[in-house]
Amino acid sequence: MTDPTAAALPDTPALLLDEARMQRNITRLARHADALGVALRPHLKTAKSIDVARRLTGGTPGPITVSTLAEAEVFFAAGHSDILYAVGIAPQKLPRVQALRDKGCDLVVILDNAAQARAVAEAAVPAMIEIDSDGHRGGLRPDDPALVEVGRILQAAQCLRGVMTHAGESYTVRGREAHADFAEQERKAAVTAAETLRAADLPCPVVSIGSTPTAHAARDLSGVTELRAGVYMFFDLVMAGIDVCSQDDIAMSVLTTVIGHQPAKGWTMIDAGWMALSRDRGTAAQEVDQGYGVVCDEDGRVLTDYIVASANQEHGIIALREGASQPPLDLPVGTRLRILPNHACATAAQHDRYHLLPQDGGAFDVWPRFNGW
Amino acid sequence: MTDPTAAALPDTPALLLDEARMQRNITRLARHADALGVALRPHLKTAKSIDVARRLTGGTPGPITVSTLAEAEVFFAAGHSDILYAVGIAPQKLPRVQALRDKGCDLVVILDNAAQARAVAEAAVPAMIEIDSDGHRGGLRPDDPALVEVGRILQAAQCLRGVMTHAGESYTVRGREAHADFAEQERKAAVTAAETLRAADLPCPVVSIGSTPTAHAARDLSGVTELRAGVYMFFDLVMAGIDVCSQDDIAMSVLTTVIGHQPAKGWTMIDAGWMALSRDRGTAAQEVDQGYGVVCDEDGRVLTDYIVASANQEHGIIALREGASQPPLDLPVGTRLRILPNHACATAAQHDRYHLLPQDGGAFDVWPRFNGW
Repeated sequence: MTDPTAAALPDTPALLLDEARMQRNITRLARHADALGVALRPHLKTAKSIDVARRLTGGTPGPITVSTLAEAEVFFAAGHSDILYAVGIAPQKLPRVQALRDKGCDLVVILDNAAQARAVAEAAVPAMIEIDSDGHRGGLRPDDPALVEVGRILQAAQCLRGVMTHAGESYTVRGREAHADFAEQERKAAVTAAETLRAADLPCPVVSIGSTPTAHAARDLSGVTELRAGVYMFFDLVMAGIDVCSQDDIAMSVLTTVIGHQPAKGWTMIDAGWMALSRDRGTAAQEVDQGYGVVCDEDGRVLTDYIVASANQEHGIIALREGASQPPLDLPVGTRLRILPNHACATAAQHDRYHLLPQDGGAFDVWPRFNGW
Repeated sequence: MTDPTAAALPDTPALLLDEARMQRNITRLARHADALGVALRPHLKTAKSIDVARRLTGGTPGPITVSTLAEAEVFFAAGHSDILYAVGIAPQKLPRVQALRDKGCDLVVILDNAAQARAVAEAAVPAMIEIDSDGHRGGLRPDDPALVEVGRILQAAQCLRGVMTHAGESYTVRGREAHADFAEQERKAAVTAAETLRAADLPCPVVSIGSTPTAHAARDLSGVTELRAGVYMFFDLVMAGIDVCSQDDIAMSVLTTVIGHQPAKGWTMIDAGWMALSRDRGTAAQEVDQGYGVVCDEDGRVLTDYIVASANQEHGIIALREGASQPPLDLPVGTRLRILPNHACATAAQHDRYHLLPQDGGAFDVWPRFNGW
């Protein structure tokens, strides 16, 4: 695929994407969902790219999850017509939802209270009820009496599609066992809520769960109909830090250039600051704090124990990880490096395009990405 | 000024700008620079907006500072021809610098080492030498023997414009006295470096210092020719937290909508997460931690002690500040609120436009802004 904006080497800082790693990550979860007998509804909040979306399902637009109406509009225009907007609906946004539905997009919203349900029912927009499976943020507990009340308001207008939950707290624990426990917690909360609705003579065709850690660790999804995950296409240091992937699976990095040194401090200055890397410090609470990112050479080989220790807007400071004992980096001004991101969602959001690593020593193709609401 | 994209009320989340406050902030620092007898070279890394740039100097494009070549290109196209690119130059970027210079832009770069100086001299691009006045990140100490060496390399190609420094550490202390001490430290470092160059028969016409805290607190800038500052146009909670401004001076906020509640936890859920607010937690290290931002009503009145306590990508969680004793917020779904940002540079970077608060109850005009490199 040749792109007119393709460049021999992008100016730095630039967001790089390793398509081969991405495809491997996509295939891994698609196979796992197949084995579990559930549909996969990938979340495109991280990718925000039509080119990435195309590669999720072998070229045919499939069901997706989005976090903004801007995503819904872009991906519908690109051929996706089965879309879940997975952020609690604000009533003021319903006209935009209806406009997409009027064009033939099966856009479904989520909600967790009666005020939202009444607005949605009045607008005749289908909705899923958000279930709280782990105290992470929104949602009704499966035993909350409001669940049936909300279900009834929706069903009176034929708007009840099902239930959904997201175990955001699974990010805080490490290892497959712990994530499998959270997957079971998600499953149980969603299935219990679905059964409660059905026991009240309400329909609940869709039972949707998912987060990247639980989607990979789930062993049995009886009663669940679909799985959602987003960051898995790219992975990042936060996911590597809880053993959902290895650093070698991380498909996204930021290309940067050495611009100076502070030898007395062991610092190497680079032209990727938080504007290029994001302010995300998601590994700060993990066992290994990766600063603002792990340093690799231009070819992506990890330079063990060198991290971006500090970041200003357009400056990064590379230093040796605390306690490590190698000599400071000694790389000439102009040397290119790659930085693995803490959090792919936050880092990608700082960029308006992906530069594809050349597979054959050729040019870097460009895939545009978008932001906004 | 009427804009075709102006709206009665923008969809949320949206970046709001209070033009009257901004103009007051702009005037305040312009007057202070006048009183000190130095030129002001505003930094546009925060604003990234032609409309904001126009209001800095009463409509006539004046000298500016930028943090990316994309900014240099956009602002040159908008009429600014005296531009300092204040991030250490990577040799690979010199062709883009030369291309702007060839079109008539007096674009000047900064550097702090001999490798950069040789590349810059070969390209015949004028440069300022970055001086380290406080150990913050880059720059040569004023007594570093490399200063004269770098100066000689530049001067051999007639490329030496002067010296510049930035007291980034002034952000870590509170109050006018402490900032005035940092301003004097900036002044002394830059003037000492200039004198060292002159004593070696090297020219140093420009002596440039500045950061928002020091620019406002400086009392005497003898020997300094120009002052730089950026975030002062908007201010933010970090600046308010160190008494450079009050919360009433903050010109930027994020409009958001209530989408739900978790009554048992005292949480109010809003549709502004870190994607709209940024991941910046710059107040975390200050005396008062403002979480992801201070909550105001739709008209901008601060709701004392309510902060965005936590943020996911598109969800914010409002809670009472720790230790405060009011009842939880009790606002219906659909209520609009405004959030004051920790760090205006980081929050603005998450948005592609400013929505101007209507001065007369009319529509929200839109000023576009840009990102990227």
